[in-house]
Amino acid sequence: MLVSRRLEGDMMYDVVIIGSGPAGCTAGIFSVRRNLKTLVLSDPMSLSMVEEATVIEDWPGEFGIAGMELAKRFREHAGKLGVEFREDKVTDLEEKGVCFVVKTQKGSCQGKTLIFTTGSRHRKGLVKGEDEFAGKGVSYCASCDAPLFRGKKTLVLGGGDSAAMYALLLKQIGAEVSIVHRRDELRAAEAWQKKLFREKIKVFWDTVCLEIKGDKFVRSVVLMDRKTQKRQELKVDGVFVAFGEVPTSELARKAGLKLDERGYIVVDKFQKTNIPCVFAAGDCCNNPSKKIVTAAADGAIAAESAYNHIKGQ
Amino acid sequence: MLVSRRLEGDMMYDVVIIGSGPAGCTAGIFSVRRNLKTLVLSDPMSLSMVEEATVIEDWPGEFGIAGMELAKRFREHAGKLGVEFREDKVTDLEEKGVCFVVKTQKGSCQGKTLIFTTGSRHRKGLVKGEDEFAGKGVSYCASCDAPLFRGKKTLVLGGGDSAAMYALLLKQIGAEVSIVHRRDELRAAEAWQKKLFREKIKVFWDTVCLEIKGDKFVRSVVLMDRKTQKRQELKVDGVFVAFGEVPTSELARKAGLKLDERGYIVVDKFQKTNIPCVFAAGDCCNNPSKKIVTAAADGAIAAESAYNHIKGQ
Repeated sequence: MLVSRRLEGDMMYDVVIIGSGPAGCTAGIFSVRRNLKTLVLSDPMSLSMVEEATVIEDWPGEFGIAGMELAKRFREHAGKLGVEFREDKVTDLEEKGVCFVVKTQKGSCQGKTLIFTTGSRHRKGLVKGEDEFAGKGVSYCASCDAPLFRGKKTLVLGGGDSAAMYALLLKQIGAEVSIVHRRDELRAAEAWQKKLFREKIKVFWDTVCLEIKGDKFVRSVVLMDRKTQKRQELKVDGVFVAFGEVPTSELARKAGLKLDERGYIVVDKFQKTNIPCVFAAGDCCNNPSKKIVTAAADGAIAAESAYNHIKGQ
Repeated sequence: MLVSRRLEGDMMYDVVIIGSGPAGCTAGIFSVRRNLKTLVLSDPMSLSMVEEATVIEDWPGEFGIAGMELAKRFREHAGKLGVEFREDKVTDLEEKGVCFVVKTQKGSCQGKTLIFTTGSRHRKGLVKGEDEFAGKGVSYCASCDAPLFRGKKTLVLGGGDSAAMYALLLKQIGAEVSIVHRRDELRAAEAWQKKLFREKIKVFWDTVCLEIKGDKFVRSVVLMDRKTQKRQELKVDGVFVAFGEVPTSELARKAGLKLDERGYIVVDKFQKTNIPCVFAAGDCCNNPSKKIVTAAADGAIAAESAYNHIKGQ
């Protein structure tokens, strides 16, 4: 067999954590502090939301740290304590023995407990032409792609924190940027709104983007004013889509975890799911708050619950 | 009137936070990010549990930071964003107007919302002689007092994380140290237990301390083996008491907040108390987990709830 098997099928962990964002790393930290053999698996093809963030201003004690740097610190802390990290995508879960066999692209292993920290991903495909021009002028990650648009005309679609962050980064990098938002008020935190105002970033209020058009690349968008129904075509080179997030919970659904109507994993205050050996933390679950610090706290609680489960408490 | 009034009675804040530990600072950070006028009041005579910790190993991203340093970073972050800090003890709360008038030693102010982050304090007075010799060989804070006991004989009473931390610090500083614990197993995280084992710190298992004796200072303790009932008197110079924490919630009780049977402020998952304009976060409330990262997350959620309350949502 030529496929390299990094994970051995018989390898048994106390805790297998799926996802290496703030929730996953913090779950790992608290799990190894309880002397549990802990593995964190991360999909090598996807960045966590933290990694994508250009600047993070709300992680307590660090004002204005780059997302990539904060993510690195979380992983380093967990690694130093003895958490094992593997870049390997989980493909399937199979109920067996005390809990689950975790099947990955490169092998498999067993966990006495599982913690889902699979996070969320960008909401996509709401605008005509969006899929067609993805990577050809349509982007979901300003910190990845903004530098490509220096001196170019760009639009940001959305009204939350991400939309504000994207617009500010584009402006700072030297792109021409406006925001298109379907309501007359942004959802973004007031701190972001102040900055948008200070930078004189134009917002098309009560406006939706009906279509993204182009040839090899994006060339224009069709906007519609929701009040007047008036349409206009606007020449642009780039469209940054920030329509919020959807939970990454397909694997959880497949494993039989209960999801809510929006697809979030249902957990109680101990981060327990409907399956006794499985826990979930962070943006993939139905907790009321979706912040880095609350995801980290979820992870800590999930690890304690995994510990108690293993100890039979 | 000669008393300096730092706070003006008519000064109205959107959010008044009582307590400046991780929960209080994080509540402040999220509150000002929502553009709310925010005041943090802290009792100048008491340290938060974080400030007392010699070393913190479980704040994600920072392995082995001094508690004092981490607490400083939290305050600096909040201060940089515009949170107002005052060292002034709250003496009373009076229902008035939209929420409460906050009376302090130096003045008063008004808050449209209040967030209790009053934390917890050491459980005291369980051992005969403990009160009498407090400050005369009996200590509740190893990071404050351990250096006084270099080359001396000390005991740590307790079995949790704090007891382990105290013992390790005393050992490191060059004191002779043993732990007295009433059970046959420590509550401390396994990571701490491993260190105690590595440092060969002796534990008197199943043992209670019946009395602390001395003259001007502590001279000895009377221990009893709970299984054999055998007593022994042991010469010691210092006794570090680490019997866990009790919530600081007297003010909350006075203000009419609902407490549980152990004195913790009862909150829901939005950190709401039984009074609509009042929220609570961190070690003073009845959340299942008492960690720095969960306290901080509570603070973030409380601030969002305060914001929603003010906006009438």
